[in-house]
Amino acid sequence: MKLTNTTFLVAASTFALAAQPARADEGMWTFDNFPTEQVREAYGWAPNQQWLDKVQAAAVRLTGGCSASFVSGSGLILTNHHCVASCLFDNSKQGSDYLNDGYIADRRDLELKCPGQQAEVVTKITDVTGDVTGAIGSLTGEALTKARDAKIAAIETAGCPDTDTTRCQVVTLFGGGQYKLYTYRKYSDVRLVWSPEDRAATFGGDPDNFNFPRYSLDASFLRAYENGKPVSTPQHLKWNPTAPEEGELTFVVGNPGSTSRLYTQSQLAFEREVRLPITVTTLSELRGRLIRGMEESADHEREGLDMLNGIENSLKVYIGRQKALNDPAFTATLAAKEDELKAKSAGNAAIGDPWNAVDDAVTAYRSLYLPYRFISPSSDLYGYAQALVMAAQERTKPNAERLPGFTDSALPLTRKQILDEKPVYNWLDQLSLEWSLSKAREYLGVDDPDSKLLLGKESPEALATRLVEGSNLADPAYRQQLWDGGMAAIEASDDPMIQYALRLNPRQRELKQQVDEAYVGPLTVAGGKLADARFAAYGDTLYPDATFTLRISYGQVKGWVERGNEVPIATTLGGTFERATGSPPFDVAPAFAANKAKIDMDTTYDFVTTNDIIGGNSGSPVIDKAGTVIGAAFDGNIHSLGGNYGYDPTLNRTVVVSTAAVQEALETIYPAPALVKELKAR
Amino acid sequence: MKLTNTTFLVAASTFALAAQPARADEGMWTFDNFPTEQVREAYGWAPNQQWLDKVQAAAVRLTGGCSASFVSGSGLILTNHHCVASCLFDNSKQGSDYLNDGYIADRRDLELKCPGQQAEVVTKITDVTGDVTGAIGSLTGEALTKARDAKIAAIETAGCPDTDTTRCQVVTLFGGGQYKLYTYRKYSDVRLVWSPEDRAATFGGDPDNFNFPRYSLDASFLRAYENGKPVSTPQHLKWNPTAPEEGELTFVVGNPGSTSRLYTQSQLAFEREVRLPITVTTLSELRGRLIRGMEESADHEREGLDMLNGIENSLKVYIGRQKALNDPAFTATLAAKEDELKAKSAGNAAIGDPWNAVDDAVTAYRSLYLPYRFISPSSDLYGYAQALVMAAQERTKPNAERLPGFTDSALPLTRKQILDEKPVYNWLDQLSLEWSLSKAREYLGVDDPDSKLLLGKESPEALATRLVEGSNLADPAYRQQLWDGGMAAIEASDDPMIQYALRLNPRQRELKQQVDEAYVGPLTVAGGKLADARFAAYGDTLYPDATFTLRISYGQVKGWVERGNEVPIATTLGGTFERATGSPPFDVAPAFAANKAKIDMDTTYDFVTTNDIIGGNSGSPVIDKAGTVIGAAFDGNIHSLGGNYGYDPTLNRTVVVSTAAVQEALETIYPAPALVKELKAR
Repeated sequence: MKLTNTTFLVAASTFALAAQPARADEGMWTFDNFPTEQVREAYGWAPNQQWLDKVQAAAVRLTGGCSASFVSGSGLILTNHHCVASCLFDNSKQGSDYLNDGYIADRRDLELKCPGQQAEVVTKITDVTGDVTGAIGSLTGEALTKARDAKIAAIETAGCPDTDTTRCQVVTLFGGGQYKLYTYRKYSDVRLVWSPEDRAATFGGDPDNFNFPRYSLDASFLRAYENGKPVSTPQHLKWNPTAPEEGELTFVVGNPGSTSRLYTQSQLAFEREVRLPITVTTLSELRGRLIRGMEESADHEREGLDMLNGIENSLKVYIGRQKALNDPAFTATLAAKEDELKAKSAGNAAIGDPWNAVDDAVTAYRSLYLPYRFISPSSDLYGYAQALVMAAQERTKPNAERLPGFTDSALPLTRKQILDEKPVYNWLDQLSLEWSLSKAREYLGVDDPDSKLLLGKESPEALATRLVEGSNLADPAYRQQLWDGGMAAIEASDDPMIQYALRLNPRQRELKQQVDEAYVGPLTVAGGKLADARFAAYGDTLYPDATFTLRISYGQVKGWVERGNEVPIATTLGGTFERATGSPPFDVAPAFAANKAKIDMDTTYDFVTTNDIIGGNSGSPVIDKAGTVIGAAFDGNIHSLGGNYGYDPTLNRTVVVSTAAVQEALETIYPAPALVKELKAR
Repeated sequence: MKLTNTTFLVAASTFALAAQPARADEGMWTFDNFPTEQVREAYGWAPNQQWLDKVQAAAVRLTGGCSASFVSGSGLILTNHHCVASCLFDNSKQGSDYLNDGYIADRRDLELKCPGQQAEVVTKITDVTGDVTGAIGSLTGEALTKARDAKIAAIETAGCPDTDTTRCQVVTLFGGGQYKLYTYRKYSDVRLVWSPEDRAATFGGDPDNFNFPRYSLDASFLRAYENGKPVSTPQHLKWNPTAPEEGELTFVVGNPGSTSRLYTQSQLAFEREVRLPITVTTLSELRGRLIRGMEESADHEREGLDMLNGIENSLKVYIGRQKALNDPAFTATLAAKEDELKAKSAGNAAIGDPWNAVDDAVTAYRSLYLPYRFISPSSDLYGYAQALVMAAQERTKPNAERLPGFTDSALPLTRKQILDEKPVYNWLDQLSLEWSLSKAREYLGVDDPDSKLLLGKESPEALATRLVEGSNLADPAYRQQLWDGGMAAIEASDDPMIQYALRLNPRQRELKQQVDEAYVGPLTVAGGKLADARFAAYGDTLYPDATFTLRISYGQVKGWVERGNEVPIATTLGGTFERATGSPPFDVAPAFAANKAKIDMDTTYDFVTTNDIIGGNSGSPVIDKAGTVIGAAFDGNIHSLGGNYGYDPTLNRTVVVSTAAVQEALETIYPAPALVKELKAR
């Protein structure tokens, strides 16, 4: 339920830093820099290149913010239930509540298209560091970000002339220390195959989220299509429904979204003092509005569930981070690391004082943060409007001058996400818009010019009502028309949401420029120097901060000690019935109750490992030495929430739903004989 | 709107510390230790004893959490609108929305009783330090708190044999350095005389709360009654509807509720790391639930308003405190003060190391905090149940052994607050209970024994519904019956809320014992030593932390500089119309709009002074050198929120509604000729 890469409403960090030498089982390693020797030393065995290549070829990134893997030769994809929840939700109508009831496609023609979803497999990693740093030269500020983005756009376009089946993406690693071109085979038609009931996947709900022992069937299957047919995927992982043993070596292969492991002290202070308090406070209010709104009717309850799950998951993440950064013992270790690196770098003139440069950039960002954060209101319809306006403006420019999301290489996915059919519920959209406008006014202040730009003389309530009720953007045909018509169509539109997006657009662009100039540009320069400092001090066996690109982590099946008590490595299906109270969210899923007599109660359900993962890893295959898949990672334990800033091998754990439990479900709880057969085939 | 003493749901601090020497205009001084020389030096004039005695005799404490003053010889009381909002609200029924519409009693027989409200005037302050510290001796832990509370109960009972017209309260000052017996003349029948429309008092609503320039008619009149007749109050302040001038010396006389000015570093860390994040996060969710609930119908909007105002006001306070404690420059000054006191106390064996004792107490409290905080759910009906159960148990004990709220001297007010008739809205009570139960589970964890005690096998939603819908406690006759019937009636009751309170009671008592033993007791000892240290280092011209007892602060009418801009000292009534947008909460009150042509637009509306005040001071008279009342304090500016921890003379300001504006309102906007006449009479 928790490791998607969509931390609600907070832009992913643009500044990723190199790590100090990794501790036992620590690290989200790139496939071109796997720490073979380290693993062999710790576990007496390490994968060879062939093993790594095979696994890489089966690893899938889902653009919705998750990870996954091919598990049959016909494009079958294993991922988490919570990674397909939006797809279930978007396909539901009155009378068919797939999110609540689950969905089993008995035949391929019943498999359901997932709006906005795309599956991607890395086929090549190319070092383009020289090209990008060459283009940057000695530029600074916004000039730097422009030159960098132009070069990246050119590299991506040149690398993937066929944007129908490939996607190119230049990734910034080590905060500017390295630039790598990732080439993907992409599948933009992804369909839903099998999903259990929501309660089976979310048993224990928000209270049990990020906790263990756990009883969650957080698994689902998708299938990749092309030209209306399932794709052939001979490079899939072998399905292995055998429960793992304690101490067994495990690999998690997926796309961790973002970490901030080596933020400098001033960046951590900004998180602790500014960003996290504001995020937790405002998101808590949204949660409250939505909880009450969902209690108003059965329709509201169904329609709000997907959004509530996202909010509660994000909140738990941020509250966990806030707790970590409010723990003096935890932050002291981070401070000590920085001191060590400074000491090792002292006297190295080529490195200079990048820490001071970061301090200055963060100071500048502090005064830009509130307007930059609140200038783009939060609502699906507004999101369409803003993207349509931006796209129309950007598409008139040469590729090299466009904003990153609108370059030739990025446009196909942006377009798909704007145009795919998806339900919009006006009450939800209004709730979200009203909330974000009122929070903007609260934090910016009534008399702030940006508050006035956002609200004019209207109240947040009245403005949200007028914009949502008057907009036609819920209709995909209308969005298509505006997309096709470009700026002329946009400017001619009398849609109030489009007009509103046009009103905010110049200020949004101005703020982005200011942030690039004072913050992103300087951080990129400093990030490169900090990376140099780390490589000089610790050699090249380092992993970069997470960037929602393919990584592999190693570890073992292992419990931990919680307040003096040993936490076991695994739960069983039978444990569900013992934990159930009958009251939501501790009510047994109907199919579990109905099939109680048939279920093998001793089947291993969920288990924990020491693998180092984070949001974005959701759905990642958990792989044994033999290269077979034994589970899908779906969560971390509560201690893993501090993992954004640092990994603690004694406490941080990955939570996995076992293939053993999925197999049992496929056979006796949510029967899908054809799927069982497909998974058995080599 | 903001300076009541009811910071929502968070118990007032039990640990008040002595201050370092005060800076210019700093200090909430007790009447028996007024810094005459300091004031004379700063302003060339200081009040004499006669002046002080006169003012003290006119100063009123309202038990609802506000301050006030007598302004006529017939018991007429000036206070804030927001201090009578609950009274307006509780007297409203369908068809009569006094909170929204305001209320003017043309004749005395139309004046409305305010449930739970009591007016109190200090008649004597007696030093009982020796008595109490003698009883404490060298006791520690819970034994200390028991001996202290027993002695206090005895002193209070002896001091006020007539509990119908007097109230005795022993106050702990300087965290245990001093104990003073405050004797009050009390008036338990308080009635509403005059109140403007809500929008006139809350123009700008939550967005403008704690801000200035401000356009708020946050004033109202009450009247004290006895034996069904207005009381005679010859000692009243003279009404002076003249606007003050810049630099004019002002005194604020009232009851600041609670400050934490000299918390030690470990106490501040606890606030910053634990209490404030949890408070702000959970309260934000409640705010969201309520905002949405109020949007459901006109009834809900009316019924929820008073609670929402309270929540939003508290949230702004806590968010302001969080910001202050997350400001390294601010906290550095607090740390420096502590270092200075430690240095001055070094080598003084009688003082020892109370800081270390506080550290240990805070460490112990950290592990008790979550259960102690969450073991008492939040709802009006549950509050009645808990108080009835506790009272029945305590009343069977000798006076010396009872909990502080249930001693002979405290019982009359406790009884009044339980038995006074007050509307309960089930949907609101359920919303609040459901929220507090779900937050308890979230913070304690599903598997925590206290979570299980609170919920059993029920969900927060189902339990809240069952308890609220099944309870008869909204009926004051039923509460009276249980009060009169004592434990026998309580135990025989099948009211589910009573049964629930009985279920939680033993654990609540156990936790209180543990907190007394490990935290309150040790803090009392350390507080005494810290007070000794401060008196030794700085002499006796110190003011104690606020304790919701009578204080006087001095200052002047003065603006401040906000981001380079001079903030003026005052607004005018006419400014309201310029600031109005027509959208709530910036819509002009109907009576303002209707009387626009008649209003003297140049009338001074609200003004600011440097007086040092805090929540609880709401409604305090602002008094000039002549001893006449020129306004009622109703707010601080945004910088004053850090005032809980420290006063900054350059930025902290008191916000006052002028008597000039009130006079204009009484004459032309909400006409009350009889009141005008009464105020004019000497």
